[in-house]
Amino acid sequence: MTLLFASTFDDPSPWLAEITRALPALETRIYPDVGERADIRYALVWKPEPGLLASLPNLEVIFSLGAGVDALLVDPTLPPGVPLVRMVDHGLTEGMTEYVVLHVLAWHRQLHAYRSQQGESRWRPRAELLARERTVGILGMGTLGSDAAAALATLRFPVLGWSRTPKSVPGVQAFAGGSATEAGLGEMLPRCDILVNLLPLTPATLGILNRRLFAALPRGAYLINAARGGHLVEDDLLAALDAGQIAGATLDVFHREPLPPDHPFWHHPKVVVTPHTASVTHARTAAAAVIDGIRRHRAGQPLVNLVDRTRGY
Amino acid sequence: MTLLFASTFDDPSPWLAEITRALPALETRIYPDVGERADIRYALVWKPEPGLLASLPNLEVIFSLGAGVDALLVDPTLPPGVPLVRMVDHGLTEGMTEYVVLHVLAWHRQLHAYRSQQGESRWRPRAELLARERTVGILGMGTLGSDAAAALATLRFPVLGWSRTPKSVPGVQAFAGGSATEAGLGEMLPRCDILVNLLPLTPATLGILNRRLFAALPRGAYLINAARGGHLVEDDLLAALDAGQIAGATLDVFHREPLPPDHPFWHHPKVVVTPHTASVTHARTAAAAVIDGIRRHRAGQPLVNLVDRTRGY
Repeated sequence: MTLLFASTFDDPSPWLAEITRALPALETRIYPDVGERADIRYALVWKPEPGLLASLPNLEVIFSLGAGVDALLVDPTLPPGVPLVRMVDHGLTEGMTEYVVLHVLAWHRQLHAYRSQQGESRWRPRAELLARERTVGILGMGTLGSDAAAALATLRFPVLGWSRTPKSVPGVQAFAGGSATEAGLGEMLPRCDILVNLLPLTPATLGILNRRLFAALPRGAYLINAARGGHLVEDDLLAALDAGQIAGATLDVFHREPLPPDHPFWHHPKVVVTPHTASVTHARTAAAAVIDGIRRHRAGQPLVNLVDRTRGY
Repeated sequence: MTLLFASTFDDPSPWLAEITRALPALETRIYPDVGERADIRYALVWKPEPGLLASLPNLEVIFSLGAGVDALLVDPTLPPGVPLVRMVDHGLTEGMTEYVVLHVLAWHRQLHAYRSQQGESRWRPRAELLARERTVGILGMGTLGSDAAAALATLRFPVLGWSRTPKSVPGVQAFAGGSATEAGLGEMLPRCDILVNLLPLTPATLGILNRRLFAALPRGAYLINAARGGHLVEDDLLAALDAGQIAGATLDVFHREPLPPDHPFWHHPKVVVTPHTASVTHARTAAAAVIDGIRRHRAGQPLVNLVDRTRGY
C-alpha cells in the first residue's frame, strides 16, 4: 500500500513525516521516483504532470494539496472513476480569512494612500468611514467565503454573500444565482463598496470579474481577488481602474504566475500585488485531513470533501 | 443656559446641529466668540487655550471631544471643582479597533515587505505564520483596549492584556501592575510578538515605551502606538529598530504633531506613520454622549465617564 507525493511547489518532507508517523504501514514515494506504478493506491498532488495520475492502474483516491482543483480538472486524462478529495484545512481557512480582513481593512482605512503620503513626508488626515458604513460583498460562500464573511461581520461591516445555491451565515445577507445583469448577483453588486472573490474556478465562473461586473458595482469600489487568476479579465480591470470605476484592487492570483516582470499590475498605483500567498496549505495542520481520508477509505467509510466533477469543486 | 464649543481641530457645525436639535433651549457659542462668560454652563472642548475654562465663573461640566484628557489635565488653571467627562463613543471605539486589527494583520502577514517587493517587481512568497501562532499584547484594557483585544481574539490571535487593575475580557489573558522588569508587565512582555499601546497618558505611563520595555520583548517584535506620543521615547525606538530588537513599528501619535518634515520616522524603512487618524470622534455618533450628559446633569443624575483627576483618566 503506497502513497505517491507529486508537487513541484510543496516540500514533501513535513507531509510525509506526519503521514508516516500516523500510518506507519503506508509506503511513500516522491515524484518523479514513482517506482512500480501498480503499487500506488493514493496520490497527494498539486499540479501533477498531465497523464501521471492516469498511468497509475490501481489508484484508489486522489488528494489535492490545495482547496481549488481547477488545475487537476483540466487534465483530460484524469481518471474518471477515482475519487478526488479537495483540501479543507482549518489553517488554510484561517490564513485566507486573515488575508481578506487585512486587505478589506487596508482599503477601508486608506492604508495605501497613507503609505504614499509617508513617502512624501506629508501629514494629511483623510476623512474616514466606519466599517458599519462600508458594505463588503463576498463571491463564493463555501468554507473559505463563509469564514471570511463571519469575521468581517464581527468587525461590523455589513456583509453580503453570493453563491450558486443560497448559504446561510449569521449576520450575512445571502444572494444566489443570476449574473451581473440579472437577479441574484445583479441585485448584490450595486451595494458592494468592496468586493472579495473567493469562488472556485469552474467553466461557470471563468472570467466572472469582467467589464459587466465592474460596471454593476458602485463607482469607486474596491476589488480583492484571492481565488484564481482565471476569474479576472485583466484588461477589463485595467480599464475600470483607469476610468475610476474601480478605485483599487488587491490581487493574489494571476493568469500567469509568477506574474511576468513587465506586467502592468506591478507598477499600477491602484493595484496591490501579493505572490499567491493569501493562504497556503501547511503540512502541520493539513496532513491530518489526508491521514483521516486514508483511514476512512481503508475502513470503507465515505470520504469527505469529495469533488463533484460536473460542478467543478 | 449656554454651551461653549472650543476646538482648534474640530468643525463645530455638525456638533452644534445635533446638540441644538436635541436641546433646543440650549444656547451655543463658538470660541473665540465667548460673549458673556457668566452665561456659560457647559464647555465642549479639545485642547482649549490654557486659562479659558478657568475664566468661566459658572461652568458646571467640561466635556472632552477626545477619549484622552491628558492635554486638559496639564493646564494648571483647569477649574478643580468642575466635573470633567471624557469621550466614550462607539464610533471612536470601533474606529480604533479597525486600526489595531489592520496594523496587527499588516505586520503579521508581512504586507509592508510585500509592498516593497512589488516596487521591485519581485515575486517571492514568504513563510507565513497563522494568527494562532502569533501572540498580541495590549497595553491599556479600558473601553478601547478591551474592544480591540476581543476583535483580535476572534481572529484567533492569542491575546494578553495589561492594565493598572486586572480587567476580564473573554479569551484574553489578563496581567496587571508591575513594570517592564517586574511581575505583571514584566511577565507579559516576553510573550508579545506584537505589542499595541492604547494606554491613557498619565504621569505613570509617560515614556513607558522605552529601552527597558523594548528589551523585555522577544527579539523581532512589532510595536503599534495608537495612544499618545508622550508614551514613546522616540530615540529608544530608533535604537531598538536599528539593533533589530524591534522589527517594525506603526505610529499614529508623536511628541510633535504634525510630525516635523525632517523627523527620521518619515523615511525609516521599518516605520509606518499615520497622521493621528487611528480613530477620531465623529459628531454623528458622539454628539449623543454630550446630549445625554447635559440631560443627566439637568435632571440631577450622576454623570458617566467622569475623569478621576488623580488617576489621570
